[in-house]
Amino acid sequence: MTKKTISDLHIAVVGATGAVGTEFLNILKDHYTDLPQLTLLASARSAGNTIEVNGEAVVIQEATPESFEGVDIAFISVSSEISLDLAPHAVKAGAIVIDDSSAFRMNDTVPLVVPEVNGDDCKWHEGVISIPNCSTTPLVMVLQALRELSEITRVTASTYQSVSGAGSAAMTALTSESTDLMNDKDVNPDKDQIGFNVIPRIDEFLDNGYTKEEQKMIDESKKILHLPNLSVSATCARVPVYISHSEAVHIEFKNSINLEDVRNRLNNFPGITVMDDPKRDIYPMPYDIEGKDDVYVGRIRKDASVDNGIVLWIVSDNLRKGAALNSLQIAETLVKLELV
Amino acid sequence: MTKKTISDLHIAVVGATGAVGTEFLNILKDHYTDLPQLTLLASARSAGNTIEVNGEAVVIQEATPESFEGVDIAFISVSSEISLDLAPHAVKAGAIVIDDSSAFRMNDTVPLVVPEVNGDDCKWHEGVISIPNCSTTPLVMVLQALRELSEITRVTASTYQSVSGAGSAAMTALTSESTDLMNDKDVNPDKDQIGFNVIPRIDEFLDNGYTKEEQKMIDESKKILHLPNLSVSATCARVPVYISHSEAVHIEFKNSINLEDVRNRLNNFPGITVMDDPKRDIYPMPYDIEGKDDVYVGRIRKDASVDNGIVLWIVSDNLRKGAALNSLQIAETLVKLELV
Repeated sequence: MTKKTISDLHIAVVGATGAVGTEFLNILKDHYTDLPQLTLLASARSAGNTIEVNGEAVVIQEATPESFEGVDIAFISVSSEISLDLAPHAVKAGAIVIDDSSAFRMNDTVPLVVPEVNGDDCKWHEGVISIPNCSTTPLVMVLQALRELSEITRVTASTYQSVSGAGSAAMTALTSESTDLMNDKDVNPDKDQIGFNVIPRIDEFLDNGYTKEEQKMIDESKKILHLPNLSVSATCARVPVYISHSEAVHIEFKNSINLEDVRNRLNNFPGITVMDDPKRDIYPMPYDIEGKDDVYVGRIRKDASVDNGIVLWIVSDNLRKGAALNSLQIAETLVKLELV
Repeated sequence: MTKKTISDLHIAVVGATGAVGTEFLNILKDHYTDLPQLTLLASARSAGNTIEVNGEAVVIQEATPESFEGVDIAFISVSSEISLDLAPHAVKAGAIVIDDSSAFRMNDTVPLVVPEVNGDDCKWHEGVISIPNCSTTPLVMVLQALRELSEITRVTASTYQSVSGAGSAAMTALTSESTDLMNDKDVNPDKDQIGFNVIPRIDEFLDNGYTKEEQKMIDESKKILHLPNLSVSATCARVPVYISHSEAVHIEFKNSINLEDVRNRLNNFPGITVMDDPKRDIYPMPYDIEGKDDVYVGRIRKDASVDNGIVLWIVSDNLRKGAALNSLQIAETLVKLELV
């Protein structure tokens, strides 16, 4: 059955009270006056509470295997464990799952989609479509915009990731740790302190010395771009910022390219805004990009250390394009492709 | 005249009330029980105030061209403008100037020295010896430690620099901005907000799109290592951290190297501590390295994107090895080489 617009759908939001779930509802309200039918799901702890959506109090229900009856699209933003548990039930009930966790991303039967890059991969879904890690999405958009200038031979990225990528609790921890430190109190976090600190580890370590977060950027970029042999490396670090991830990126090309072409390509790519005017001290920063839909690129320059290389600086709202917005755009792609 | 130890010298500290000047005095007290004769100099604004050094109140004097009579070593940590003005007077009075600013670093007649790397360059000084930018020093120590494994062909660094690199006022600004933001007050800094933000610009922009800070890392590394053709690139960003700079660094070698050799070289190099145990979640972070003398290296791994490449993470106290400690070590080198 073909639905015409997002407004005609029944969408379940699993993790509706989380940082990404909240942003998903914000973006829905920003983008649509006629909202789809919404089922808001969360843990038993939140069940019974209400969330106001366009002036109406919607009651949060506990997410269970039985929650997906009549649902067209289930947007799931919870831990990988809970995703692995719930997604099959949603698919069985006839919903298409758009999953924010890393649980299914590298499955051969699961498209991993950034609509501006590989929206057509939605066509071969078997019930689940994954969205990439929030640091992968802005990177592959930039690479997709530039790959037609010349073959990309190598990419290295160093990230400056905000705490909201680790969820609402991490945002609260940043506030409490910062307050304590400014009042000369010791902080004793479970793991590493983030207040006025940088943590060069996100997710667990792998045997090759990379973290899972870094390996995700490497593997996911290759899958999304359909470039299994692309050379990619990353260092992922957490910085004391609430929202928006930044990345310092080196890109090498097979042939020489010029910066004017780079700027034009980036500016003409949907969802990318070039914000790059050194003479006026203009470059993207997380605090300014928070709440914006686009991926912002600045500091574009020739790499002084290699032929045919460039360096640039990417900032994007990790809760929006990095997660909730990308998911909504996948839903829109499903509608456009008449897959829902 | 040959002096035997630091304690026999007369040292003038210009900028004694600044972030680096304060740390210089702390390190002197940490390293020596018999302190040298000290003349503490600062702007007219601070003149007449006292600083307690080993229980004795030392009066701060206004730094003027006449301040350097009888001084053996003048450690200057002020703006480039004031350094350019005062250093020639100190030299004329017979002092050796150890200058923390960028004013003289690239002069052909001025050695740019990290004692563990190129201490012997002190021998050809003509009155002024410069210390490198606080992000250059830890990088060249790592490169010096590793260059004997195989020729280094390319280096790229992305920095996470603390606000103390911009002086005491920037540290105060980080506190006040953080407080205001947590209380939902707008902040209106003169330039960019640093509270809960990342600023991908340190110092002014050059025509090639790099900032002066980035160009310093590039040019100074080549000079210190005596490798004028080394390929280096850098992105320098300010993060909301009080003290200690971090750097994500990619190093490429001509031949293949193995990580065990890398770790051994680094561990055996004076002034470097390897802090790298992923299985126990151990890696250097700025909050832990603050107040420490060594340069700390972790996250050592093979670069997944290139043959013969490694990636690592460097953290060092920018006020200590990045500035004050390096200066004191130059003074010690001058004593050892009987140049003072």
